Amino acid sequence: MTAHPRLSLNQATVKHADLRTTLGVCRDSGIPAVGLWRESVHDTGRAEAVRLLAGSGLRLSSLCRGGFFTAAEGRARRAALDDNRRAIEETAELAAGAAPGSAAVLVLVPGGLPDRDLPQARLRVVDAIAELAEEAGACGVTLALEPMHPLYAADRGVVSTLGQALDIAEQFAGVGVVVDTFHVWWDPELNAQINRAGRSGRLVSFQVNDWITPLPADALLARGMMGEGHIDLPAVAAMVQEAGYRGDIEVEIFNQEVWDSEPGAVAGAVVEAFAKHVLS
Amino acid sequence: MTAHPRLSLNQATVKHADLRTTLGVCRDSGIPAVGLWRESVHDTGRAEAVRLLAGSGLRLSSLCRGGFFTAAEGRARRAALDDNRRAIEETAELAAGAAPGSAAVLVLVPGGLPDRDLPQARLRVVDAIAELAEEAGACGVTLALEPMHPLYAADRGVVSTLGQALDIAEQFAGVGVVVDTFHVWWDPELNAQINRAGRSGRLVSFQVNDWITPLPADALLARGMMGEGHIDLPAVAAMVQEAGYRGDIEVEIFNQEVWDSEPGAVAGAVVEAFAKHVLS
Repeated sequence: MTAHPRLSLNQATVKHADLRTTLGVCRDSGIPAVGLWRESVHDTGRAEAVRLLAGSGLRLSSLCRGGFFTAAEGRARRAALDDNRRAIEETAELAAGAAPGSAAVLVLVPGGLPDRDLPQARLRVVDAIAELAEEAGACGVTLALEPMHPLYAADRGVVSTLGQALDIAEQFAGVGVVVDTFHVWWDPELNAQINRAGRSGRLVSFQVNDWITPLPADALLARGMMGEGHIDLPAVAAMVQEAGYRGDIEVEIFNQEVWDSEPGAVAGAVVEAFAKHVLS
Repeated sequence: MTAHPRLSLNQATVKHADLRTTLGVCRDSGIPAVGLWRESVHDTGRAEAVRLLAGSGLRLSSLCRGGFFTAAEGRARRAALDDNRRAIEETAELAAGAAPGSAAVLVLVPGGLPDRDLPQARLRVVDAIAELAEEAGACGVTLALEPMHPLYAADRGVVSTLGQALDIAEQFAGVGVVVDTFHVWWDPELNAQINRAGRSGRLVSFQVNDWITPLPADALLARGMMGEGHIDLPAVAAMVQEAGYRGDIEVEIFNQEVWDSEPGAVAGAVVEAFAKHVLS
């Protein structure tokens, strides 16, 4: 089966494969793009990772992930912001070496609650992006704020809806949002906010997967392969298309069973499920 | 410790106690109101349940629950609607016999997805309420639509935000909404929508509990005692107060550890945690 020309394999889907293996299974299965994770880039060594990606002929669709900047002012917050600056540089360098059509997009996971003050934690996300947006722009990197399922509001991502992410992104040049089906599929305003993201030119990353029930015991691993769950993926893909997004579409699945499978088999399953349940 | 004069024990918090025991532990711990579940009313026998509640001197704060009406037209949908009609009658009868200040409020859990068409399932909720609202009004019963945490959008409640619940409720006379902290605490529009619910006179039930992490393996049992989690409960209670709600405040906790505890001890813990972490 031929992979869709806009399909990208997010590395989290083959979590236990190293960078070389990940690039290899993409090429072997005809997947033309890849979304990388910083942990893997660091394990490989940054220069070597840039070299391997450049040699792979694959496009980069995003680097995951910066963010985690909800701490109060102080040493931990400064360290988080400095780490985000390194992530911006990594994104620029990886994208520059990768195949034409690559996206210098850094995905930002907002971070969870340091205390019970949710509005305050949310304001700290705005402050952090205010601090980073210009530097990202100077490097040609687009920051992509990821609204996360409200399931994660306490411990991972205090930005809970696409509308809220856009309220933040639209304050800054060069900042966009991620539409990840797992995180946003339930939102009554989904169509309207995807449309808005398109109009304001903020839709910079699209990730697909599925919402499965019953929710696995570890809620972090609650994503399924496309077609295994409840999300009307063709409908969401059509909204994103209608909004003018023409970039690569990442498949990002956190799922123990997928992780326990052989990476090449996972890539093959991704190609098939994408064609059957997302876009053909 | 004296129980707060607006405190109500929702029966789900002492799931394994029968109706007589539940009423007894409320009285013994000075809790002046109770939220009942239909399963327990049926186990006791409806007439006997009405008699026991009337004799307890407690107020009824709500009956849980009607709803589950997202099926397509057909026998299952008709059966669900007929069951809701019985639930309306039960609410009226229980409230009429209970102490002055009781609320003839029937909590409605929307129901999950019969297929992948989420917008359609949501429209079926509107249709069902359209069908029931007049009968409820004729019985003096207020229908209370419960927006549920997006975590449950697939399998339990397709109405995911307070704003969405109000969009539905405001179409009909005698229909309101439930504010349950577990379900709505994450919502960026929480303050605005609670305010709106107050203005339109739709805030008819308030339930408290806490969001705990890590989320337990069974996501249905993911609620904690007030103070054990991440929700700024005094802030939400203040919004609800500001919106003009003056009814009883139910403590509703689905949690295995709480269920495994002796009901009298749970009631005592509820009285203390409410005073310490919600309203004193």
